[in-house]
Amino acid sequence: MDPKRLSPRDFRALCRAGRYAGATAGIAPGHVQANLMIVSRAAAFDFLLFCQRNPKPCPLVEVLEAGRWEPVAAPGADIRSDLPGYRVYRDGTLVDEVADITALWRDDLVTFLIGCSFSFEAALIEAGIPLRHVAQGRNVAMYRSTIDCVPAGVFHGPMVVSMRPIAARDVARTVEICARFPQVHGAPIHVGDPAALGIRDLARPDYGDAVDVEPGEVPVFWACGVTPQAVAVAARLPCITHAPGKMFVADPLNAR
Amino acid sequence: MDPKRLSPRDFRALCRAGRYAGATAGIAPGHVQANLMIVSRAAAFDFLLFCQRNPKPCPLVEVLEAGRWEPVAAPGADIRSDLPGYRVYRDGTLVDEVADITALWRDDLVTFLIGCSFSFEAALIEAGIPLRHVAQGRNVAMYRSTIDCVPAGVFHGPMVVSMRPIAARDVARTVEICARFPQVHGAPIHVGDPAALGIRDLARPDYGDAVDVEPGEVPVFWACGVTPQAVAVAARLPCITHAPGKMFVADPLNAR
Repeated sequence: MDPKRLSPRDFRALCRAGRYAGATAGIAPGHVQANLMIVSRAAAFDFLLFCQRNPKPCPLVEVLEAGRWEPVAAPGADIRSDLPGYRVYRDGTLVDEVADITALWRDDLVTFLIGCSFSFEAALIEAGIPLRHVAQGRNVAMYRSTIDCVPAGVFHGPMVVSMRPIAARDVARTVEICARFPQVHGAPIHVGDPAALGIRDLARPDYGDAVDVEPGEVPVFWACGVTPQAVAVAARLPCITHAPGKMFVADPLNAR
Repeated sequence: MDPKRLSPRDFRALCRAGRYAGATAGIAPGHVQANLMIVSRAAAFDFLLFCQRNPKPCPLVEVLEAGRWEPVAAPGADIRSDLPGYRVYRDGTLVDEVADITALWRDDLVTFLIGCSFSFEAALIEAGIPLRHVAQGRNVAMYRSTIDCVPAGVFHGPMVVSMRPIAARDVARTVEICARFPQVHGAPIHVGDPAALGIRDLARPDYGDAVDVEPGEVPVFWACGVTPQAVAVAARLPCITHAPGKMFVADPLNAR
């Protein structure tokens, strides 16, 4: 059975059974996917405040109270087992990549589900605006920018941005379409001129894969959901995240 | 000097000097005013989560970290002295109404500034849509509705709604205008039919003053910033709030 054709619920059951460990791009098309960030209750206020102050890189889909693992956005789900993969950090260092975090669970862990660009990418493709990294089956190119996030408690650091080359004629429509999705990074934060974001070489992204910008295209930049992870890791906080590209697949549809 | 003509900064200085203790309706027209809620750090995560889950009644203008009293939205201000009046609650009971809370300040207090309807009311009046309670110099009528807020930790309870009678021909435009102000309660949550909100008698509001609904007018309901106060008091939490109608006057303009 092609996992792409499963419902969100059936796909999560597949992950829970340990039978899928791949990326979630293209899974359950049209449904919300979310970045995962789990921190201890001691750090949860600061992290929630960081998200509140930086809604573009950290658009909250849902926050679960300490000890809870079943999101409202996915009744019956268990965020400890229903993603294809997890990363475990201690003191800012990746210490493990696992398929299930049930054994690591504690009652003081607070889960944050943060919007993911897959939602607006689907809308762009539907509108006939091609996305090179999707066509080429690569991860999107991401860069640490010189834009500082608004700090909150122990959390501070640069905004990570994703870049998609867009044909000049499609840039305005791209902005219009993405602005309809404030829950998932919304409108781009920057159009053209990578140097103004402190990006010297588009061919050398800090995360993900490089893609070429062709003649007639403009590099368009979005606030990226990797930002909160990068900031939590920089704060040397113990935390658990999804493994790159292996998002939580929730029930709601992107269209809102 | 008419306090209505002062800049936000000068008005705050007047309050700080103990020379103004009235309401803030009409003060520093065009500038953001905010509801004040101060809770201890122990309750701050739950309260921030409550606001995140209930953005219509609790639109956050700013959250100050524990111990901080100078908002980004008002450099130089001191939220401990720059409002015309404060209310102090213990165990869900109002124990004091004071002009200054500097003596009560502690390093673990977290301040929430929550959007206030004054912002969209100014926009409605500018658009030629009259507001009866403003014309009559009364407080807006507010009701406990049967809509439950989304609970968060110790915080739960009904949404408080404000009601303004609007001429039938102006209802759609009222919605359009208010939708442009998501930071201050945004679009109405309910148009007409008070009974569907569990409101039996518009003439008997739970807070504020009753106003008549004239023939040809529709009662229009907004999520109200009194909600978080009511919920915190119901949770029997120690907290400090602004005194009714005596808001924090910030620097930014409403137009955004």
